[in-house]
Formats: sequence, structure tokens, C-alpha cells
Amino acid sequence: MRTLLLKKEEVRKLISMKEVIGTVEEAYRAFSENSVMQPPYTGIHLPAPRGEIDFKLSYYEGNEVISMKSSSGAFPDNPKLYGVPSSMGTILLFDARSCALMCVMDGSLVTGLRTGAAGAVSAKVLARKDAKVIGAIGTGQQARMQIRALREVIDIQGIKAWSRTAEKMASFQADIERDFGLPVALASSAQDVVASSDILVTTTRGTGPVVEAKWVKPGTHIIAIGADQQGKQELDPALFKHAKIVHDSTAQCCEKGESWHPLTRQIITMNDIHGELGEILLGRKPGRENDEEITIFDSTGMAIQDNTTATKIYQNAVVNKIGEFFEFIE
Amino acid sequence: MRTLLLKKEEVRKLISMKEVIGTVEEAYRAFSENSVMQPPYTGIHLPAPRGEIDFKLSYYEGNEVISMKSSSGAFPDNPKLYGVPSSMGTILLFDARSCALMCVMDGSLVTGLRTGAAGAVSAKVLARKDAKVIGAIGTGQQARMQIRALREVIDIQGIKAWSRTAEKMASFQADIERDFGLPVALASSAQDVVASSDILVTTTRGTGPVVEAKWVKPGTHIIAIGADQQGKQELDPALFKHAKIVHDSTAQCCEKGESWHPLTRQIITMNDIHGELGEILLGRKPGRENDEEITIFDSTGMAIQDNTTATKIYQNAVVNKIGEFFEFIE
Repeated sequence: MRTLLLKKEEVRKLISMKEVIGTVEEAYRAFSENSVMQPPYTGIHLPAPRGEIDFKLSYYEGNEVISMKSSSGAFPDNPKLYGVPSSMGTILLFDARSCALMCVMDGSLVTGLRTGAAGAVSAKVLARKDAKVIGAIGTGQQARMQIRALREVIDIQGIKAWSRTAEKMASFQADIERDFGLPVALASSAQDVVASSDILVTTTRGTGPVVEAKWVKPGTHIIAIGADQQGKQELDPALFKHAKIVHDSTAQCCEKGESWHPLTRQIITMNDIHGELGEILLGRKPGRENDEEITIFDSTGMAIQDNTTATKIYQNAVVNKIGEFFEFIE
Repeated sequence: MRTLLLKKEEVRKLISMKEVIGTVEEAYRAFSENSVMQPPYTGIHLPAPRGEIDFKLSYYEGNEVISMKSSSGAFPDNPKLYGVPSSMGTILLFDARSCALMCVMDGSLVTGLRTGAAGAVSAKVLARKDAKVIGAIGTGQQARMQIRALREVIDIQGIKAWSRTAEKMASFQADIERDFGLPVALASSAQDVVASSDILVTTTRGTGPVVEAKWVKPGTHIIAIGADQQGKQELDPALFKHAKIVHDSTAQCCEKGESWHPLTRQIITMNDIHGELGEILLGRKPGRENDEEITIFDSTGMAIQDNTTATKIYQNAVVNKIGEFFEFIE
């Protein structure tokens, strides 16, 4: 039995953002076609100041692969004390025909990539065709990843960015201008960003609204990334009242996504949810229907995105003869 | 970050059954001392004729290791179609201080070893001091493993065995006599085995009682291995009425172990459960108190057994310089 081992730097080179957009789109379609099994996540919260490690499983009939991704995060002392990153991950891929272990790959990069691609997939069907200004509230790694993915599907003319820390904003501006050659204007407030954006990306770790409903102009598409756990929140719940609300997984978004807040406060009911992104991609539900509507994509992240993305990385590695085979069972 | 890779045949040589008895004893103590986290198991049941793959997680404060074991089973076509075993497993060990991946080892052998050792640990505190005849109902791989472990703690004089298939019985007899030099008498019935055993080991995949209460003589210790899922059963529920009942995990045994049956049929109540094996090992509860009582150890299996056992294998590998290091993150 041959198992392919892939290092972090090999994974980085083995997939393009364009390909990740394809694998994430495939994941959403598969999910809405019910050809996916995703048991509930499990995880272990370690005693403070350590963070947590989560395990996400999925099986996809379409590729006959079972994926298991561990991801650890919020270990601030790691670089200094142990010489390892504060967030890490490992992905196992099993051939679902036999459950043979096909691949062990470093999984540190996959979460960021597939979350970045999620926003771009939503923009393809929910942003205005003439959208050109991207607003970024939150300027961390995931904000960079959203821009990296959006530029594959949107003809970006400029970016307006804001975060609480001036230093972080400046470093975001420098990185985006250097890496992508896109002009970044730093905003004086979150409101300033919202008022000038065609597509608004929120990637904060906020636990209360940073975007007020009245700031949002008609035709805006909002990519809400930050809220993926109970207690996290970035948007004014009132914003949901008159928006087209689209989920990655309705079950998850209603339990721990941005949508939990307006539902719990009875600002909307389940009938106000437009549907899942996979249903739109499959043509079962419409995407954006006019230039006036406000659309919200609530993204909480799904194991099937890891499955299709890691499988593509594995396939690219095999074709390009990258990585090392190891026989755990000889 | 250095990750140790260990193959199945290396794992086989890296730990003795005596050591596994030690690691399983440590696991039970740790569990009953509340220094363990074990989230609920998750798994994926594949479409027939394929079986399932399960994932078991644990964290143990005592060794600061997080373990994740995948185990797949019931893939009967694997050897013929794919050239791999019908059951396989993989274990990941993470350093809980940083969540760095310490080890990827083949996990095919660990479940069998730690389950075998469980019976022996129970026999140390629950079997009569003069116990010498082992009865085996069920003669598969796990029956062999139980004997292999029991001989480390019991001065076995002979074994009486029975299973439904004459061919399997004969092969069990030949293997045990060859491997351990112990005489095996094949019984004509389950009753014949029960009536002559000091320690009775049940390892069938039965879904109904094979051991009747009235067959069991005073002073018998029963190691009930087979029932680890809803629907599985090996013992007459009436047997629990006057027995000392000991669990690996009371929560698990009452939900999916042998104990579920007498509890559901109200033959016993929770007050009739003596306690967990870890509590006896810690001296918080007595083990066997006289030569007359019938004792039952209901074993359902716990992730912490994988944790302590795999950690010992890892430590032995490091000391003996076995295995290959790999840098997933350079």
C-alpha cells in the first residue's frame, strides 16, 4: 500500500487559486446534491493559554475519497517555545473503496485557500456584473486570501480597507499592492469602506456588529467570513431583513454562522433564507436577479471543501511526481 | 518539525504484550482520575458491501499527547480487489503543548493489542487468585489476543474453547498450542466451556445471548469483549442480577455495551454497577472480595487506550531508533 507524503511547501506549489475555486465550487454542488457525508466536527480545547485542535471528516461519492483534516489554532507561544507555527494542520486522504491511506499531507494551507475561494465562488453568482471596488473589513491573512481569490473572478479596480489597527492596515496595503498590483485605499472608518464597496468582505474575529445596515448601498454583495462559531458576529442583524441570504450549509449557518443572530432575534425566519450556494450553482435557485438587491453569503466552512481541494492537490502531485511515497503496510 | 513514520511491521516489534498491559492499566487509571478528554467517536458508514471507518480522539494530561486513530473494518473484498487487508488503521500523535504532529503510525495492530490487554488488566483484580482454566467462546483473532495477554498475568493450565465453526476451533487450537505451548480442549458446546472455566472470555460478534446465567459457576470472572455497539449481545441478562459488574467506561457500557441489555430490561439498575476498572486500579473501589462472587468486566474500548499504547510505541521507537523521520513543515 503506497501512501503519498506531501510537505507544506509542496502543497503550496501544487495548487493554484483558480483550481481551488474549481474544487470549492465542486464541493458546494456535491453538498447540495446530497452526495456527501460530513459527520459533526469534533475537537479538543486545551487548557489556556493553548488553543484547540479540530477534526473534520467527509466522504464524497463523486471522487470516492474520505478526508480527515486536523487543524490546530491559537497557540501563540508556538514559534518562540517550540519553533513551529501557531496554527497547523494535517490531512489524511483515504481511498473510500478500501479505506487504504492514500495520502498524508500538511494541511496548514488548505483551510485558508478553500475559505478564500468560497468568497470568489459566491461573487460569481451573487455580485453585480459591474462590481469593481472591493471593501475589506479586517486585514489579516484571510482578507489577503479573499482578494487573491476574488481577482480570479472579478475585474477589481480598487480596494478600500479598514481594520482597528493602523499598522495591520498599512501592512495589508503594502502586501496587496506588491503581490497583486492593486491599489488599496485605507479608509477612516468601517462606514467609509461599506459606503464605497461593490463587494464587501468581512474577515474580523468580531463578536458584535461592525457593519450597520443603513451604511450598505443597494447592489452590494457581502461575503461574511468571520462568524463560524457561536458568539461571533460582524453584521448588523437588521441588514438581513431586506437582503438575499445565501449559505454554504443552512444547517451550520443557522447554528453558528452570521445568520444565527437575525434568526434568534426574530428579524428573519427560515423562510427568508434564499438557499445554499450549491443550489444556485446547480441552477436550482437563482443567483442575483437585479442590480439593486443586497446579497449576503454566510460562510461557515465545510469538510467537503477540504476533501475536494486536498484531492486535487494529491492528483496534481501524482501527475507531477511531487512528494514521497511511503509504505505503512508492506 | 520532525514527524516519526512507523510501519505496521515496525509497530509489531516495538511493543510487548506486557507493556500493553501497562499502558492499558495507565489508561484506565487516567480515565477514572479525569485527566483524559475523549470526544464522542465519529465515523462514516460506506455503502454496502463496504464497511465503515471510525475516528477516535483523546487527550491525556499525563503524557501531553493527543491521539487520533482511524480504523476501518469489514471490507471483505480488499485483499482480492485491492491487495490490502480488510481492516486497517492509522494513528496520529500530536504533542499537546503545540499540536505539532509527532508521529504517523500504522494503527492496524493497536486495537487488537489494547483490547487483548484489557481482559488481562481486569483479570489481575477480578479473577480468583487460583484461576487456571480459561474458557473461550469465540475463537477469532481477538480470542487469541486475550490468551496472549492473560498468560502474562495468570498461570494458565489449560484452555477450553468453543465456536460455531469447527474449522475455526481447530485452527485456534493449533495456533495457541504452537504459539504459547498451552493445551486447548475443544468443547462440544458453549455450556461445556462455561462450566469448566475460571475465567471466561467471550469474543463473538453475537447479537443474542450465548452464555446462560445458570451455566456459570461461582467464582467465575467473565471478560465480555464482543458487545461494543447497540444490538450486540453475548451474555444472558439474568447473569448480571447477582454479579459484580465492572465497566471500562460506565457511560459507554450502559449505552452500547453488554450492560445495556440488563439495564434496559430492568434486571439491574445503575445502583447495581460496581464501578469502573480504573476506580479499582486506583484503590477507590474493591476488586474481587471473595472466591464465590461472579465478576463481569464489560469492555467497550476507549480512545485513551490507543493514546497510551501508541505513545509507548512511539517512545520505544525513539529510544531504539526505529522508523523514519519526515518533515511535513521544514
